[in-house]
Amino acid sequence: MAHDPAPAHAALKRLHMRGDQLLIGGETVGELASRVGQTPFYAYDRQAIRSRVDELRGILPADMHLHYALKANPMPALVDWMAGLVDGFDVASGRELSVALAAGMSPACISFAGPGKSVAELSAAVEAGITVHVESEREIAILHELAAGGRRPRLAIRVNPDFQLKSAGMKMGGGASQFGIDAERVPSVLRGLDGSRIDFRGFHIFAGSQNLSAEAIAEAQSRALELARRLAADAPAPLSELNIGGGLGIPYFPGEQPVDLAAMRLSLQQLAIQAREWFPGTRLIMELGRYLVGEAGYYVCRVLDRKESRGRIFLVTDGGLHHHLAASGNFGQVIRKNYPVVVATRMAQKPTEKVMVVGPLCTPLDLLADNMLLPPAVPGDLVVVLQSGAYGYTASPLGFLSHPEPLEVLV
Amino acid sequence: MAHDPAPAHAALKRLHMRGDQLLIGGETVGELASRVGQTPFYAYDRQAIRSRVDELRGILPADMHLHYALKANPMPALVDWMAGLVDGFDVASGRELSVALAAGMSPACISFAGPGKSVAELSAAVEAGITVHVESEREIAILHELAAGGRRPRLAIRVNPDFQLKSAGMKMGGGASQFGIDAERVPSVLRGLDGSRIDFRGFHIFAGSQNLSAEAIAEAQSRALELARRLAADAPAPLSELNIGGGLGIPYFPGEQPVDLAAMRLSLQQLAIQAREWFPGTRLIMELGRYLVGEAGYYVCRVLDRKESRGRIFLVTDGGLHHHLAASGNFGQVIRKNYPVVVATRMAQKPTEKVMVVGPLCTPLDLLADNMLLPPAVPGDLVVVLQSGAYGYTASPLGFLSHPEPLEVLV
Repeated sequence: MAHDPAPAHAALKRLHMRGDQLLIGGETVGELASRVGQTPFYAYDRQAIRSRVDELRGILPADMHLHYALKANPMPALVDWMAGLVDGFDVASGRELSVALAAGMSPACISFAGPGKSVAELSAAVEAGITVHVESEREIAILHELAAGGRRPRLAIRVNPDFQLKSAGMKMGGGASQFGIDAERVPSVLRGLDGSRIDFRGFHIFAGSQNLSAEAIAEAQSRALELARRLAADAPAPLSELNIGGGLGIPYFPGEQPVDLAAMRLSLQQLAIQAREWFPGTRLIMELGRYLVGEAGYYVCRVLDRKESRGRIFLVTDGGLHHHLAASGNFGQVIRKNYPVVVATRMAQKPTEKVMVVGPLCTPLDLLADNMLLPPAVPGDLVVVLQSGAYGYTASPLGFLSHPEPLEVLV
Repeated sequence: MAHDPAPAHAALKRLHMRGDQLLIGGETVGELASRVGQTPFYAYDRQAIRSRVDELRGILPADMHLHYALKANPMPALVDWMAGLVDGFDVASGRELSVALAAGMSPACISFAGPGKSVAELSAAVEAGITVHVESEREIAILHELAAGGRRPRLAIRVNPDFQLKSAGMKMGGGASQFGIDAERVPSVLRGLDGSRIDFRGFHIFAGSQNLSAEAIAEAQSRALELARRLAADAPAPLSELNIGGGLGIPYFPGEQPVDLAAMRLSLQQLAIQAREWFPGTRLIMELGRYLVGEAGYYVCRVLDRKESRGRIFLVTDGGLHHHLAASGNFGQVIRKNYPVVVATRMAQKPTEKVMVVGPLCTPLDLLADNMLLPPAVPGDLVVVLQSGAYGYTASPLGFLSHPEPLEVLV
């Protein structure tokens, strides 16, 4: 629609198609759906993930390490693939740890963050030799106890910063928080570490996620570096590692733009220069989840019914919020906005009707696209939700109304 | 706090305790947790469910049937228990249908509603001999085709009403909708039914759920009856069944009050008198899910850590939004409000501190109680979220961050 004044979804610009069909991993969506054997399913494009990592490597300082946070997408095959692309993993639970180890990542390059780690999880982490990012003084005490068996637990302190990342989708710093230890308490905590029992590795300072502003991310990273310098004065040893988080977002909603990587490159080079001066020999780590995999994922479902009700058209699909909660607007959104959605079997056709794309559940919350301009679709057509590689499958209530689970494929 | 002006949670009034311990099904929460062998878990109190059904039977007209909607809680043991208490089941998917049949409910008393039923689900429903509540003309066409094999599918029409239920938590009528067939199109749809192939059973008219106003529910039911009378003029046969939905809510948030059952009783008696005049011989059905099981359920988790951060106290538990999405405020709530939460091992102690009860996930969304006044709790204490029997376990993203699933027990 040449005259549609609505801002577009940035994700639509990077799609590939053959005739009417969306291509996923070089294959038409129709061929892929036949090969998978059912809808709905999630497909993750391994070459798209590799391209994203390559692109990032192109702007990261050569001595900066890149870690993948499994929480974004812990599918084992995808984690195996990531193991060959990145320098380390971050895990958020005991089960994620077992997936990370099974992928062959060196324990020395795995960290474990998250409030509320159980004693069993902490013990497993110590046995495996990974680095625990402690979030409280209780966790530090438990690690000291676990050292008794001859192990010397690797510990980094997750710091609750005294600054906040501007314009982050999820703010996690600056105020009271369940995450990390307040920056102002860190010096006394550091003095309480028993270096004979604990291998102090460094800090993890992270102020927010899903940020699209290179400027805001750069400022947060710069302030994280300054905070680390202040805190390091009380550390029992020079920092082996400094994890400055990530926070790079991807554009989900109309009008959002991708992070400006040219600007990120410049700020990261400056950061690295400063880091080499203040922290010679320290491994600087950027940890990313969503940014590495989010845009490589597609949620594919099929139109089951086309209904008209009081002037509105409803495309009823076999997929919905039970598989993709975030796309329905029910996960952290205050005001519901549409994810990018396409009729993947009519890519060459003009969008001429505004429709509601809904799922099969008995709730009006089960909405994949609200009043979206799409090409006319009929039962049998495939509908694809883009930007679905992170916080999709595992962040959804798969058992809701006891419908079949979607499959996940890596293509 | 005698001077706390905040409205209270109604659910707190009906708790039982022994000393400091909350009783669940007559057992202390501590004994129950030991017996279950892990936290977190959901416990459903079967006697509480029976009491609720008995209470309802006391106000329902003797000839009104009571159905249970499995979507609220499809745990097989609970569904088995319900089979002995209610007159029929409503299912929302093929898997719920198999649970309903396994519980021994007669197929003649099972209905299947929901937009986007697959051909496989419709076929299974017809083979089982249950009643399909059709939501579109496509479903009617498929049922006619399925009749070819000698079966005569049982069909009721779900009607998208031309009125709206006032003050419902989830509005489902009055406008354009994916649910049901618009009331104004029903006459022509009825004329298209082939009575030789289809066993027309009646209507399903439902205008919303989670309503706490007896007056609003009564008005909606009365208007549903009037609508059914208008529509019945074009029906090929007298109605065998008329499902007027339910819509009765339970109080989740501070200040909310339970439905006034004395008022409901009066309006239902009037409704039944009218129904006997207009629909002699028709089975009048009230279908309820949440109202039957919601208040009988408890989500039990354990405090893992107690943290202070910048003047705030955080109780970090092993449970959270991955198990109980609705309690975190991320499922259909526009403005987050607290579910009723208690420190179930300190019931006799005074609430003297305002705390944040959070889960183990790496997201600030993982919040079970926001600034709630509770007795001081420490690691090891059990925290219980009340009103957790419906849309809890199955409506939550159990795989999020790959933490262990909670157990479910019927006590």
